[in-house]
Amino acid sequence: MTRATVWNEFRHEREHDQVAEIYPDGIHVTIAEALEERGIDAETATLDEPEHGLPEDTLDDTDVLLWWGHDAHEEVSEAVVDRVQDRVLAGMGLVVLHSGHFSKPFRRLMGTSGTLRWREAAETERLWTVNPGHPIADGVGEYFEVDEAEMYGEPFDIPAPDELVFTSWFEGGEVFRSGCCFYRGNGRLFYFRPGHETYPVYHDETVQRVLGNAVEWAADGSDAPAPGVENVDPIEPIDTDDDRSVH
Amino acid sequence: MTRATVWNEFRHEREHDQVAEIYPDGIHVTIAEALEERGIDAETATLDEPEHGLPEDTLDDTDVLLWWGHDAHEEVSEAVVDRVQDRVLAGMGLVVLHSGHFSKPFRRLMGTSGTLRWREAAETERLWTVNPGHPIADGVGEYFEVDEAEMYGEPFDIPAPDELVFTSWFEGGEVFRSGCCFYRGNGRLFYFRPGHETYPVYHDETVQRVLGNAVEWAADGSDAPAPGVENVDPIEPIDTDDDRSVH
Amino acid sequence: MTRATVWNEFRHEREHDQVAEIYPDGIHVTIAEALEERGIDAETATLDEPEHGLPEDTLDDTDVLLWWGHDAHEEVSEAVVDRVQDRVLAGMGLVVLHSGHFSKPFRRLMGTSGTLRWREAAETERLWTVNPGHPIADGVGEYFEVDEAEMYGEPFDIPAPDELVFTSWFEGGEVFRSGCCFYRGNGRLFYFRPGHETYPVYHDETVQRVLGNAVEWAADGSDAPAPGVENVDPIEPIDTDDDRSVH
Amino acid sequence: MTRATVWNEFRHEREHDQVAEIYPDGIHVTIAEALEERGIDAETATLDEPEHGLPEDTLDDTDVLLWWGHDAHEEVSEAVVDRVQDRVLAGMGLVVLHSGHFSKPFRRLMGTSGTLRWREAAETERLWTVNPGHPIADGVGEYFEVDEAEMYGEPFDIPAPDELVFTSWFEGGEVFRSGCCFYRGNGRLFYFRPGHETYPVYHDETVQRVLGNAVEWAADGSDAPAPGVENVDPIEPIDTDDDRSVH
Repeated sequence: MTRATVWNEFRHEREHDQVAEIYPDGIHVTIAEALEERGIDAETATLDEPEHGLPEDTLDDTDVLLWWGHDAHEEVSEAVVDRVQDRVLAGMGLVVLHSGHFSKPFRRLMGTSGTLRWREAAETERLWTVNPGHPIADGVGEYFEVDEAEMYGEPFDIPAPDELVFTSWFEGGEVFRSGCCFYRGNGRLFYFRPGHETYPVYHDETVQRVLGNAVEWAADGSDAPAPGVENVDPIEPIDTDDDRSVH
Repeated sequence: MTRATVWNEFRHEREHDQVAEIYPDGIHVTIAEALEERGIDAETATLDEPEHGLPEDTLDDTDVLLWWGHDAHEEVSEAVVDRVQDRVLAGMGLVVLHSGHFSKPFRRLMGTSGTLRWREAAETERLWTVNPGHPIADGVGEYFEVDEAEMYGEPFDIPAPDELVFTSWFEGGEVFRSGCCFYRGNGRLFYFRPGHETYPVYHDETVQRVLGNAVEWAADGSDAPAPGVENVDPIEPIDTDDDRSVH
Repeated sequence: MTRATVWNEFRHEREHDQVAEIYPDGIHVTIAEALEERGIDAETATLDEPEHGLPEDTLDDTDVLLWWGHDAHEEVSEAVVDRVQDRVLAGMGLVVLHSGHFSKPFRRLMGTSGTLRWREAAETERLWTVNPGHPIADGVGEYFEVDEAEMYGEPFDIPAPDELVFTSWFEGGEVFRSGCCFYRGNGRLFYFRPGHETYPVYHDETVQRVLGNAVEWAADGSDAPAPGVENVDPIEPIDTDDDRSVH
Repeated sequence: MTRATVWNEFRHEREHDQVAEIYPDGIHVTIAEALEERGIDAETATLDEPEHGLPEDTLDDTDVLLWWGHDAHEEVSEAVVDRVQDRVLAGMGLVVLHSGHFSKPFRRLMGTSGTLRWREAAETERLWTVNPGHPIADGVGEYFEVDEAEMYGEPFDIPAPDELVFTSWFEGGEVFRSGCCFYRGNGRLFYFRPGHETYPVYHDETVQRVLGNAVEWAADGSDAPAPGVENVDPIEPIDTDDDRSVH
């Protein structure tokens, strides 16, 4: 059974009535419940818990980590970012949500700035499936809509995705690569654009289906040894004994 | 005229006679002289200069930065790494050499660990051109050899290269992706494997040709604005005035 | 000096007054004139010439071939398609325009069907630069518009582009990967979406700039030998004389 | 249960005693038996059967087609190649083996020539796992060896693989991208290098494991509709009734 941990900054929900109305227990709980219905074992963790709720043993038990953050990216400790990066390279899946494009784990694993254009105007977003055969698009159809979306527009400063699944059309005139797969080390990373805290995006059935698909795709990692450095003997004979090493 | 800055840790040459014999003025000077012969305006910078020789105005005047480091990666300040990353995303080229696979700028821009297998046994390396049409392979032929090489073997923990130019065969039995192109932001990055300090690799004519090709390829950057974040007005009319922002 | 050959089916212009009004001498002449102003040596060729205007010696003198076809794809001979494919693999550039997504050379080089959704409703297309540092986007800005466009929508059945430069937003609600780079053999291929025959798209200054950029990018090919098959002797000694070949 | 069809030219085995000794019932039967042990439902088909053993209803029942051909590529009918291409684009998996690099289905789906260098000298091949987290590398370890291999060397004229899993080292001094994944339409294609008819390569346990992994990976296709062309109505209102279509 796939084990997911849904991480949430969990500040907006406690500070803004408007957000609390949509996500009374927090975005993480809404997402975790949706994953549970899908048959995924989903736990939660939040910023203000010790070690942000992500101690070593929690990550040991996590196949896929989902990450929602927005206003407090800088409060995430480097130690936890190191830990998340190491785990991803060793095979853990990571699903980065919406404003997580500026989160430390995402920027760390991308090596780019994650910058983009944006606007908050409750406009229509239509996500087109540009890769219909991809497992993350399973059952989604040719497109789906988010009625009230915060807009993110190109250029989005990321490495070229290894696989592009969705591209968004926005009512106000922009486009965005909104479902992007990356392979890093033994791990799999999916960035999924929708999800602003003031709109009920994570209650949407198709959004929940994509999240479930993404968790299952990202969990399909590897038991291969984590990347490491090793000084090795030759397999074939070498014709010289000339070793001028300064090591 | 392309302006290159060749950065070198410049420690081995001052501490080991064996290295000093091969590179009496430092690896950076040997490389810079080879680039100058190619018609590239090449300056140098080293770790122990103020700001590691890479103050803002030096990077402002640099089209392509070359990076050689080995033993003192950890001494490079985060401020300089930030600066290099920002410049690459804004369009500066970066050519990372040999043991630079563990350098801070490379790991920062890759998001991976850069780990690999290695052995120092003065063995033959044969670099095969797997992408003969690539500008960096221009004039190189189907393969070239380094007589005495430190071996680096797969798996090499990097994102899949956007373009793979060379793959190495080693006498001792390993293979390695030894010429790898990456696009990050507006910038271009090339990783080139050969170049151990105890072997006269950078005096080799074909290696020098590859370095020249790589600098010219990486310099062919962009005057586009650097990636940035921007709050923008809609281009098309939006049918709702519903804005429940908490910003 | 870069030598381009602009190929056109050249039927619509002779059969439909509406098209003839926009392109009195044919789409190929309008495009060739724009390339000439850019400093590119541009010739033309059309379907109804002998060998479709593309005999061996014409392709020998061509750095980049541009291809516009729509209604008569099936009339293009396999011999000419073979020739174009061979030349691209040997290093010639190819720029495929608009309805050329269904042309024989494009489908041959892609290996996919080239299918897409479409609509002809003179709607607004806005092409976003998703890769601002790419040479084909040089001088284009963050986006440009085509006022009256035939719509092409995703999914577009192509291999994942090696580089994605533009993505289109359409007034009617769709998106499309509208500027796609592919490397095949030693050659470079660019697919550019705009260009319906009943709209004056190729008279547009930005469209002309993209075409010029694309020709220069695609011409930056290689003098490397064309891909070939070769039976070779070993470079290193082989420890067995066991050769049970049936050849 | 995954259904595989193993296609074989099946000529060498009937014409050369040396090959018949290794594969008395044909390469296809040896591979099919190995897949059956893995729990895959494996049927076979050969060149000299009607429609090469690949009528419509056989392909309808096939999740993954494996393809071994060598001397008689030209005898495969265009109709069957069309059919295989269509099925792959619609979601069928395809695993192309060894000398199949020159087969019609492979060249059709790649768009390139498939040329390479080669030598038949019963030399050692060592396949390195360059992507340890990939499902096709599952259980394979850091490398595996084929004791007596025909050599294939770079450059290999293929599009850049969407995922590179294995790279080969050859005793005679060459390298080769020997495990390459491609996505085309809804389908998945894997090229696997080992497998010469005069060496007992397909009896090897690790090779059989890779084939099983590859079939399972390639079968993980999609129930999405096959790519198609469609004339569609706008989703959003369009501000013009100007339709100057010549259709």
